Amino acid sequence: MSDTQDIALGIDFGGTSVKVAAVRGADILGEVERIVTSDCQSADEMVARFGVSIAAWRERFPELKAVGIGVPGAVDVDKGVTYNLTNVPGWRNYPLRERLGALCGLPVMLDNDANCMCFAEFAHGAAKGARNAVAVTLGTGVGGGLVLDGKMYRGSDFAAGEIGQMSVDYDGVEGPYGNTGALERYIGHRQISAIAADLLEAAGRDFTAEDCDPRILAQRATEGDEIAHQVWYRVAGYLGSTLGAVIYLLNPDTIVVGGGVAAAGEVLFDPLKEKLRDVLSAEFFERLRIVHAQLGNDAGIIGSAALAMESLRAGELRA
Amino acid sequence: MSDTQDIALGIDFGGTSVKVAAVRGADILGEVERIVTSDCQSADEMVARFGVSIAAWRERFPELKAVGIGVPGAVDVDKGVTYNLTNVPGWRNYPLRERLGALCGLPVMLDNDANCMCFAEFAHGAAKGARNAVAVTLGTGVGGGLVLDGKMYRGSDFAAGEIGQMSVDYDGVEGPYGNTGALERYIGHRQISAIAADLLEAAGRDFTAEDCDPRILAQRATEGDEIAHQVWYRVAGYLGSTLGAVIYLLNPDTIVVGGGVAAAGEVLFDPLKEKLRDVLSAEFFERLRIVHAQLGNDAGIIGSAALAMESLRAGELRA
Repeated sequence: MSDTQDIALGIDFGGTSVKVAAVRGADILGEVERIVTSDCQSADEMVARFGVSIAAWRERFPELKAVGIGVPGAVDVDKGVTYNLTNVPGWRNYPLRERLGALCGLPVMLDNDANCMCFAEFAHGAAKGARNAVAVTLGTGVGGGLVLDGKMYRGSDFAAGEIGQMSVDYDGVEGPYGNTGALERYIGHRQISAIAADLLEAAGRDFTAEDCDPRILAQRATEGDEIAHQVWYRVAGYLGSTLGAVIYLLNPDTIVVGGGVAAAGEVLFDPLKEKLRDVLSAEFFERLRIVHAQLGNDAGIIGSAALAMESLRAGELRA
Repeated sequence: MSDTQDIALGIDFGGTSVKVAAVRGADILGEVERIVTSDCQSADEMVARFGVSIAAWRERFPELKAVGIGVPGAVDVDKGVTYNLTNVPGWRNYPLRERLGALCGLPVMLDNDANCMCFAEFAHGAAKGARNAVAVTLGTGVGGGLVLDGKMYRGSDFAAGEIGQMSVDYDGVEGPYGNTGALERYIGHRQISAIAADLLEAAGRDFTAEDCDPRILAQRATEGDEIAHQVWYRVAGYLGSTLGAVIYLLNPDTIVVGGGVAAAGEVLFDPLKEKLRDVLSAEFFERLRIVHAQLGNDAGIIGSAALAMESLRAGELRA
């Protein structure tokens, strides 16, 4: 087993900002560094910027063993290549690991952001101690990650975990790939607002766009607003149906729910648990842990660092 | 790696008959022995009968290394205990591995029949060479098994692979556990007959129960009957919706479709592939192998033997 004192650098590459920090286990060492994504005009420029950043962190932590990067899009984890990144142009088929490795002389690993979040919660967060964990992130879209038999599961083309593309209705609304009933088209941020607008209108209430924002809806539900409760009840119905299917397929012990929309808390979790109790056998439901993600905005940094250390230990990474 | 010349005994424990044979790789050695399940009045009696059978097979093949048993129901693979078997009374919490091991002196492993079928196809059949394979069996009900990253994946309570319980419709027909939209309730043997009856009636045709049998429906569709085609098109629509969800979640390279209903062949596979092309991105669809199970009725024997050898090699089995 590993030395838990090992330190890796975690880079959480987001559409608007990149966050960088040294990580030891679950602990972020020092203050998180932020780089504005749009400050760099090209992938090469961004890599050069990463190189400067890594050099500075190594000066503070000479014992840094590896660099992990979580990116917002599709990657080839084995080759260390980004296929393309959502909302960040110029990264199609970019050999990020090779370029950055050559620059900094450390082993580099990259993975997509949903996997980093999932692994962070498994290794150091809400899913600690799980053997089989499913993480789902609720935000603009719906994403996910899988740890199976204690290891990150990525699928044959590093594309596993697309919970948002799973169908809740064989005859439903089309998703981005023609996939009828794509969960994301039912409980994405925008769709939650649309459910609220429909219900408020049907009730003859005056309302603004703000009244339909998931954050406001969570607050209102907590305060006892009936329509806001109905919105979350519907969201939980769709999400629970898909998670039920995931559970029948994978028989996990832990489900982690995170992302901005999950900040709604109990007003979402209570009806979600109710739905899962309804669609699962009693035995199954009793054995399952359904937990809120713990690491929040730090999950990307902690997870990318943890995956890099894990790969290093498994002998999959070289400088 | 293993000696491919190793021989294990495979036992396919079914609701009506038990089939036993020595297996070397994909080859069944000699003639399959059949035991009528109802000939034994209790689990103990059945185990005694197994003991007699194993002794006889060892006389012919003294090099037998292990015994694998596939059972029709829920098991604890680690403990070697059957929870309960479908259509076979008297097996609740029965320590099958311990009892049989004590009797025959060989390492014994047990698993459920769907996993045995899946592993057989992965190790020696239609999914050979796969890294991530999903097997689905279509019959009275709908079952499944998963090989992930080259290993049998069983989940936290050995209950993974329940494709028939996954939802095709969040608001649909209830399955056995209150699970709305359970696939099995749409494309089980009986449900296929009901679809046929509905369509024949709507068309004003005279028909008998036999006309609604999946075997006859397959034959008629092959002969060009339009209504029979429509039945398979509908079955493929439900199945494809669920398999699409499985593919988004697991990103497998191979899907194996087997079981009695899958004997329909191209009249099912053609619309199934069409549906999957519709719901998957082009890239995803092109990379995927969708294949017919190859080992048919021998899959249970070959798979149970193969899983036993695999466990023995991994050091998980003792006599």
